[in-house]
Amino acid sequence: MSLTLAEKLAKAVERTDSTVCVGLDPRLEALPKDVLPAGCSLESLTASAKARAFRRFGDVVIEALWDIAAAVKPQVAFYEIHHADGVAAYIENCREARRRGIPVIADIKRGDIGTTATAYAEAWLAPIDGAPPVADAVTVNPYMGRDTLDPFLKVGVPHGGGIFVLVKTSNPSSKDYQDRMVDGHPLHEHVATDLAGLVPGDGYGPVGAVVGATHPEGIKRLRHLLKRSWMLVPGYGAQGGTAADCALAMDDKGHGAIINASRSLTFPWGADKAAPPEWKSMIREAGIKMRDELRRARDARPR
Amino acid sequence: MSLTLAEKLAKAVERTDSTVCVGLDPRLEALPKDVLPAGCSLESLTASAKARAFRRFGDVVIEALWDIAAAVKPQVAFYEIHHADGVAAYIENCREARRRGIPVIADIKRGDIGTTATAYAEAWLAPIDGAPPVADAVTVNPYMGRDTLDPFLKVGVPHGGGIFVLVKTSNPSSKDYQDRMVDGHPLHEHVATDLAGLVPGDGYGPVGAVVGATHPEGIKRLRHLLKRSWMLVPGYGAQGGTAADCALAMDDKGHGAIINASRSLTFPWGADKAAPPEWKSMIREAGIKMRDELRRARDARPR
Repeated sequence: MSLTLAEKLAKAVERTDSTVCVGLDPRLEALPKDVLPAGCSLESLTASAKARAFRRFGDVVIEALWDIAAAVKPQVAFYEIHHADGVAAYIENCREARRRGIPVIADIKRGDIGTTATAYAEAWLAPIDGAPPVADAVTVNPYMGRDTLDPFLKVGVPHGGGIFVLVKTSNPSSKDYQDRMVDGHPLHEHVATDLAGLVPGDGYGPVGAVVGATHPEGIKRLRHLLKRSWMLVPGYGAQGGTAADCALAMDDKGHGAIINASRSLTFPWGADKAAPPEWKSMIREAGIKMRDELRRARDARPR
Repeated sequence: MSLTLAEKLAKAVERTDSTVCVGLDPRLEALPKDVLPAGCSLESLTASAKARAFRRFGDVVIEALWDIAAAVKPQVAFYEIHHADGVAAYIENCREARRRGIPVIADIKRGDIGTTATAYAEAWLAPIDGAPPVADAVTVNPYMGRDTLDPFLKVGVPHGGGIFVLVKTSNPSSKDYQDRMVDGHPLHEHVATDLAGLVPGDGYGPVGAVVGATHPEGIKRLRHLLKRSWMLVPGYGAQGGTAADCALAMDDKGHGAIINASRSLTFPWGADKAAPPEWKSMIREAGIKMRDELRRARDARPR
């Protein structure tokens, strides 16, 4: 019997004493020379060589941060640029994190009608061809409604999987629809209320919520509405969310939330710049700094 | 100078005198034996062999319907089950349709913050490694707001690409959020109004809309709100939309809308059954029948 998603997240937070979620958003122009084939210019690389470099980079990041990462969240878009080769690298990075016991959230933001959602769930949350599931959870978009969420739970939960549903995202335009007032409440609070009703029982369930660190005033309210949901909090660091903002998503035990950073953790030298020789230790230092900031904010948070 | 998305769709509708969009949702259990390696059971196939069978099946469907298809819409979920091999087959089916001059709508329903959306757009709507773009348009989810749509236009439009944004989808749960009343109108009408404002000018632009055939009462209103948007209308056939419902999405010239069918066109013998020997002619007959039904509905529609 595999652990549930909620159990795996709790265990990872305890193992690492950390709420850091490591976002993998690899960009070719910022990759360290060490992960590229010797003597090749970026322009001369084939799609396959680029994808292999992504895989190597992701593996190094996972190795550098394995004892700090409560979760790893690879963003499929950046891999998908290299098409099938990129998707192969994506899956290998996911598998490498899982081999090290780190829960993997595949950031694929899917959402489609029932039969199609079932196919996505089978691709990412079910064992395939004798191999274990690629991910412990996937991110899902709620715009199409409940019948597009259920298949992920039906397929994923028996294998210890779950979903993180977009509730209130970290980007400025999240206000366009997520904040529209419906019956006196912003739409995203209705989404939260519906998610709370999706899974019965006590304690954390398999339905998580994505809640951006860039809206601290909303985090507290959503923490209240979503008592059984782990929160995935993007927007820390590069997008402007502070550790204190993020700590509002944690429960009394300092659980219930993982805080994602991508660029600031994996390209601390700047995503538009070539990596300096000491890049591996810079990644590790960035991870430790973020973990410690979040620990301090957790211990200092209002309760 | 490449044609715009709107010009390509208009040209395809005129070439075929058809508004049929061929949805490719391949399912292993319904694949004809002819596209499988001889003497192999389904269970014994590797992921790579399954993906090759998907590619062969898609190519045969495209060949059978090339003079009927105003567009081809491959659904990535079904290919993604076979991971990197599946994505390779997906891209090859897209390229085969484009080689035959049929506009391709990659049904990937993406939506993410700016830098991530740019990566998706580069993957699907831009030339890569010397090859032309994979698709003429992608489907996009609006829940995260305008700054998640703009990158697709910025990257795609210079290459003759565009987007189809989910406005009102064909599934029953589309009511959950898309129909919530905001300032006296359902949310999806606000999305439509915003899309109408996205691109200036007369005539059809690069911002299309997905509007389900299962809501005929809404189609007329959305046709009015979205004067410059081609509509992609799913839900015909298996989901219950009629040709008369779909015709409401067409403009005075019988343009402005393409009507998608997937299972009823590509598995007319039933998606859960083995294909009979005459499967190729059954697909062609299903295509002709749908084209002719839509022609009659177009000519009979109220104007």
